[in-house]
Amino acid sequence: MSSNREIENLIELMAKLPGLGPRSARRAVLHLIRKRALLLTPLADAMQEVAATARECLNCGNVGTGDVCDICTSEKRATGELCVVEDVADLWAMERSGVFKGRYHVLGGTLSALDAVGPDSLRIPRLIDRIASEHITEVILALNATVEGQTTAHYIADQLEGQVRLTSLAQGVPIGGELDYLDDGTISAALRARKEF
Amino acid sequence: MSSNREIENLIELMAKLPGLGPRSARRAVLHLIRKRALLLTPLADAMQEVAATARECLNCGNVGTGDVCDICTSEKRATGELCVVEDVADLWAMERSGVFKGRYHVLGGTLSALDAVGPDSLRIPRLIDRIASEHITEVILALNATVEGQTTAHYIADQLEGQVRLTSLAQGVPIGGELDYLDDGTISAALRARKEF
Repeated sequence: MSSNREIENLIELMAKLPGLGPRSARRAVLHLIRKRALLLTPLADAMQEVAATARECLNCGNVGTGDVCDICTSEKRATGELCVVEDVADLWAMERSGVFKGRYHVLGGTLSALDAVGPDSLRIPRLIDRIASEHITEVILALNATVEGQTTAHYIADQLEGQVRLTSLAQGVPIGGELDYLDDGTISAALRARKEF
Repeated sequence: MSSNREIENLIELMAKLPGLGPRSARRAVLHLIRKRALLLTPLADAMQEVAATARECLNCGNVGTGDVCDICTSEKRATGELCVVEDVADLWAMERSGVFKGRYHVLGGTLSALDAVGPDSLRIPRLIDRIASEHITEVILALNATVEGQTTAHYIADQLEGQVRLTSLAQGVPIGGELDYLDDGTISAALRARKEF
């Protein structure tokens, strides 16, 4: 391969990133070496900074630089709405849409009997605590529309029943979606949830 | 997006790597944050090390950690054969095959009138110097089988004619290749270069 241990080591580490294999890692490393001042050094610095500062929010499970993340500390976000998501990536996706003004609760996965993931490994006890301590009036279950996501949503709904208003994201045809390319499940969900035009 | 400037900055830089877009950069950064000790810190260190040490070999254009790369300094590789490639990635590909025992010369691109790339920007003068100083007996033109690669190969062949044995990589059906999936050019090249069975 390359004639050199340091470069070989960097290629091996890069190949462990999701979405990169050995070939694309080599391409990326060559690109980095060519753009040393513009990309390699800033990237190394940015990684070191994130490695030193990034931590999980003790309250909601989001990733931030303090013990409690910016969303949890912001008074503006104390709307009484709490959006439950599986993963930090889902939280970021919700934030990109820019519509939700409340706070989040990141479960960190879904319930799974096979993988021995129970409620205690999913930050569900903390969710129940937060309902009271943060005066939550509505919990929006924004879990993925997969079997695991929906099982977890039902479990949480059982736990919180009667304490708070429970909602979930609407299911139907995605914006820009073409019927011909949608699966049967989505079409029948959209048909069941049809509304006046 | 993320609630946090440092993480946002890292995502932006990662998205500049070839093969990664904004979405896969976000996925990679989340993966890195989750595997901080195992991946993020070692990767940051490896990048810093490469940024500090990697440089172009003054002799052949390969990437290494000294002024002259390991292949150029190794006496074992002084076989009198010199393999001319376009790019460091091509050199690495040749080395992976493990068959070639001589030295390399990396041009750093191909001749291009449109992009104003002339022989002087391509390390061609250095190639001509090396023929004499390293007692080269054979130059293997391992340029890509593209119009630009072959134009450059012809130019180099003109320059070196009579001084040294000139060869190029064989063209034909790749190992494991199916005729049905090959382009017409490859099939006709393989037919022209057919040999006794």
